[in-house]
Order: sequence, then structure tokens, then C-alpha cells
Amino acid sequence: MSNVVALKAKEQAASAMDRLLTLVKDDLAQTNQLIFERMQSHVPLIPELAGYLVNAGGKRLRPVLTLAAARLCGYDGARHMGLAACVEFIHTATLLHDDVVDESSMRRGEASANEVWGNQASVLVGDFLFSRSFELMVSDGSLEVLRILSAASATIAEGEVHQLSVISDLGVNEQDYLQVIAAKTAALFAAACEVGAVVAEQPAAHQAALRSYGMNLGIAFQLVDDALDYAAKQAELGKTIGDDFREGKVTLPLLLAYRRGDEQERAFWERVIARGEQSDGDLEQAMEIMQRHGTLEATLERAQHYVNMAKDDLALFPDCDLRQAMVDVADFCVQRGH
Amino acid sequence: MSNVVALKAKEQAASAMDRLLTLVKDDLAQTNQLIFERMQSHVPLIPELAGYLVNAGGKRLRPVLTLAAARLCGYDGARHMGLAACVEFIHTATLLHDDVVDESSMRRGEASANEVWGNQASVLVGDFLFSRSFELMVSDGSLEVLRILSAASATIAEGEVHQLSVISDLGVNEQDYLQVIAAKTAALFAAACEVGAVVAEQPAAHQAALRSYGMNLGIAFQLVDDALDYAAKQAELGKTIGDDFREGKVTLPLLLAYRRGDEQERAFWERVIARGEQSDGDLEQAMEIMQRHGTLEATLERAQHYVNMAKDDLALFPDCDLRQAMVDVADFCVQRGH
Repeated sequence: MSNVVALKAKEQAASAMDRLLTLVKDDLAQTNQLIFERMQSHVPLIPELAGYLVNAGGKRLRPVLTLAAARLCGYDGARHMGLAACVEFIHTATLLHDDVVDESSMRRGEASANEVWGNQASVLVGDFLFSRSFELMVSDGSLEVLRILSAASATIAEGEVHQLSVISDLGVNEQDYLQVIAAKTAALFAAACEVGAVVAEQPAAHQAALRSYGMNLGIAFQLVDDALDYAAKQAELGKTIGDDFREGKVTLPLLLAYRRGDEQERAFWERVIARGEQSDGDLEQAMEIMQRHGTLEATLERAQHYVNMAKDDLALFPDCDLRQAMVDVADFCVQRGH
Repeated sequence: MSNVVALKAKEQAASAMDRLLTLVKDDLAQTNQLIFERMQSHVPLIPELAGYLVNAGGKRLRPVLTLAAARLCGYDGARHMGLAACVEFIHTATLLHDDVVDESSMRRGEASANEVWGNQASVLVGDFLFSRSFELMVSDGSLEVLRILSAASATIAEGEVHQLSVISDLGVNEQDYLQVIAAKTAALFAAACEVGAVVAEQPAAHQAALRSYGMNLGIAFQLVDDALDYAAKQAELGKTIGDDFREGKVTLPLLLAYRRGDEQERAFWERVIARGEQSDGDLEQAMEIMQRHGTLEATLERAQHYVNMAKDDLALFPDCDLRQAMVDVADFCVQRGH
């Protein structure tokens, strides 16, 4: 692609997210209201800390998927908004605990909650939001919805522990890595979409299609995130890069570089990742090696494969603005990596 | 009481726990089997870490309460065992996160899980057990049970954040302190008992009675725990004391000592708790001041008050071995403090 064409594709993709947001605008406003109400507590630290994260300008991609999935299925009730709030609470709780586990000091360009309030408060407010998310599910009253979302929560935690167990293991293969990201990231995307179909009382094939859309989209999303952590362009934009590298986290761009590397390069990866001995210039060298082997491009190609499947998952549904926006949002997920 | 009489009362109370365990022996064996099965995962670190805690010789007091409450209500099905496992999972998840928050290195005389596997694994395996507990609730299928247990989880987390917010605040009064321990400890005792009545389909008054028994017992249990943390006799038995003191945690024995103290003593508490400036001999001095003002005895008296209410809560139920054992277990909770 020429630069001009690439830029145009990127603009179109970015506007896809805006279009999707516009299509569920009223539902999202009510969901945001619910999120605000349900994070209140007589303990002031809870809304203070939770609000810091919830208001930090995230795109609300996961709850928007619940809203969009329900509407795509022709649902015209109100249950999807409670469930969208529930999905956002699970996500926020996960972010709080992730930042403690990763010892992160930044999140979306601001100081992370654990940096401001400490690890203790982040762990406990995360627990509170998890519990609140279950209260929201219970108040929905559907055992099918409860089964889907509680299983997703357990899968997320299982994926996080799995990642922790193999974090700096250069022997991990692409299959293992996919299993980790399917659990820790994509399971919530899948559940978020599936419950939208469930409240709309869709047949099993339609529920499965939306679940699969979410799963494929979630995997693509995480693959692109993992590529962006090494993207020079991100660095030019002033965004933090190299977090995964510093944590010694073996993601696909690194895993492929290790596999494709020569003996000298493997010795480099073993020092900086397996033994965690890093010094100045190592991140730059890592990025050079990745560049040489084209592993960021390869990672984005893998992501495109999942996006293609996600788009086909939606073919069962009638052609409409909402379906088109959901297709375009899938493209947007990969485009932000280019 | 003479020493001989006191000793006899203590022996009787201790054997109450054994008697209660004997009365629910078969149910407990099946519950333990369920706990073992449901903590399995394809990620080996999960059963390894969870099993370390689950097998660490806790008395399973909370799940035993669920089993006993259901049987006291004449229940002869199997649902109470799944819910007992669920209650134990919530409790274990809480312990894992508590030890991270309190930076504890010991639990029940052994190295704590965070000491062995690190904070990261403890946070994430805690999340997994929380999620598993919700899956267990969902598989029970009763929305009433789900409502009770999910509300208890949120209340526990809220109580923990509340405690964190006021941890070293000497201005906290007894009412605030009771609110914290009712949430962080007694809410799970109450829910554990209540769900036993719910599966047995008891009338509202009986459900409320068992809920109240659990709440009162849980408050008494925590009061005694807080007293034991300063008990010289515990120190003689080689048990760790002074954990709350070192963490600057304002519990009832300390709160009363501050209230009853003179100016010099208050200056001491302000230095060691509010400012956290502790040195050798401070714990001994704290215990001396508490001894002088009789605050451990006062704390145990408060506990006895809740135990008395807990015993009266059971009066609605027919007189039987199980009811007697539940009454005696309430006494046991306070006796272990003498």
C-alpha cells in the first residue's frame, strides 16, 4: 500500500469506532449512568479510585460490543445496558489488578491507580468491582447470562496466572501464547458479544456467531497491542513503548524474533528476557532485531487473519449500518497497528 | 472463675467444634472433594497455590456453618455442599488478597502464599478462586442464593477498603470499627448460614434467624481474633502476636486503650500508630497499657454479648444435637480468647 492509501484506510478505520459509538450513543449514555451509580459506596475511596479509571478516557470498547450485539439482534429492551456496565466493571477490575501485577506506574498516559493510591487499595477496589459486576449479573436474573460471564471471569484469571507462569519462557510456542491471550483478553470480548445475543433471545447459531466475532476480535486486539508495544511510530507519538520488554514478557513479536533469530540473537534474548539482565540500548537492539525479521508485520498479519474471521462471523446478520460499523471496527483494531 | 473451672469450660468449648465437625462429617468430606475438584486447572500454578492454602489446616468453620445450617433446617439434598465449597473459595480468595494487602509473611504458622509464590500469583489466583466461587453459585441455579452470596462478596471488599481507609485513624469510634468487621468478616458468616436455610426452603423468619446467628458469630469471632493478637498467653504458646500493632491497625483493644488512656498514653499511641514510628519494646508497652485498662477483657466481653445473641438466634429451631453443637461453637469462639 502507498502511504496515501494506507493513511486513508487508517482514517476510515478510525472513524468506524466513532460511527459505532454514534449508533449506540443513547444506550451508552445510560450505561455510563449505571456504571456511575453502581460504583458508589459509603466508603469514599471506592468511587474515588474506581472513578479515576472509569473516567480515564477508555473507549468502552467491551461494553459497546454488548450494546451493539444486542441491537444488531433487534433487541429493544433495557437489559443489555446493565450487562454492558457489568462487562466494564469486570474489565476495570482486571486493569486494577494487572497494574499491580505488572508493577505499572502509567496507564493511558496518566499515573496508574496503584501509583496514586498504592497496591493495597488497587487490589481491594478491584475485588469490590468484581463483586459488583456479579451483583449486576444477578440482578439481570438470567442463569444463561450468569453462566457466560462467570465462566469468562474465571477464564480471564486463569489466563493471567498462565501468563505469569510462562512470562519469560522463551520455549513458549505460538499456540501457548494464543491460549494465553484468548483467555486473558478475548474471553471477555467473546462474553460481551454473546450476552448481547442472549438477551435478544437469538437462536444458538447467532449466539455462537457473536461469541466467535468477539473471540476473534479480542485475539486480534491483543496481537496488535503486543505489536504496538514495540512500534517506533508509537514512540514518535510520545507513547510509552517497551513495557512488555522491561517486564520480560514473551509476546508474539518477541517469540517470533527468538524463533527466527541466529545463535547470537538468541543469546541476546536469553540474557535480556530469560535472565532479565537489561541495560541501556537493549530495547533499541530488540526493536532492530524484530525489524530485521519482520516480526511486527508478521504479528499484524496474524491479527488480520483473526479480523477476517471476525468479519465473516457477522455475515449471518442482516446488512445494516450497525453490522457495517462492527465490521469496520474490526479493521480499525488492526489499522491502529500500522 | 477459678482456673480449674475456666480450663474445663475451655475444654468443653473446644470439643464443641469437634462435635460439630463429627455431625457434618460426611457432608464435609464431599465438600472437600468438591473443593479439590473445582480448584483444578490446566495451569498447574493454580491448584498448587490454592491447595497450599486450602490444605493448610484451617477448620473450615465457614463451610461447616453452611452444612450445619442446612441440616438444622432438615435439608436432605446435596446443594448445600456446593455452596459450602463456594463459601470456602470466597474465604480463601479473601485470605490470599489480605496477605498481599497486609504484606504478611506468615499464615497459620507457615509461610504465607505471597511469601512463597509472590504477590502477583496471590492476587491472580485469588481472582481465579473468586470467579470459581461464582461459577459454583451459578451452577446451584438459585437466584436467591446468588443474590445473598454476591452481595456478601461486595460487602467484604467494601469492608476491606473501609478498613484500609481508616486503618491508623485513632479518631475511629467503636461503631465505625463494628461496621468494618461486620462487613469484612461477619458478612460471609451470615451469608454462609443464610444459604443453608435457603436451600432448605425455610420461612423468612428462620432464614433471618440463621443469618443473624452467622452475623453475631462472625462479629464475636473477629473481636476475639483482634484480642488474641495482643494476648500474652498466645505468645507463651509460641504463636505470633502483634501483627495488627506492627501494621498500625486500630482494632477494638487498641481503640479502647486510646479512649481510656491519659495524655502520655495517647501521645504513645499517636507516635506508634498514627505516625507509625515503632521501635523495640513498643509492643510490650502497648500490651502493658491494654492490661492496665483491661481492654482485652472488655473486647472479650463485647464478644460474649454477640455470642449470647447468636445463641438466642437458634432458639427458633428444634432442640437437637446439631443445634446444641452450634450453640457450643459460639461459646468456643469466645473461650479461645481466654
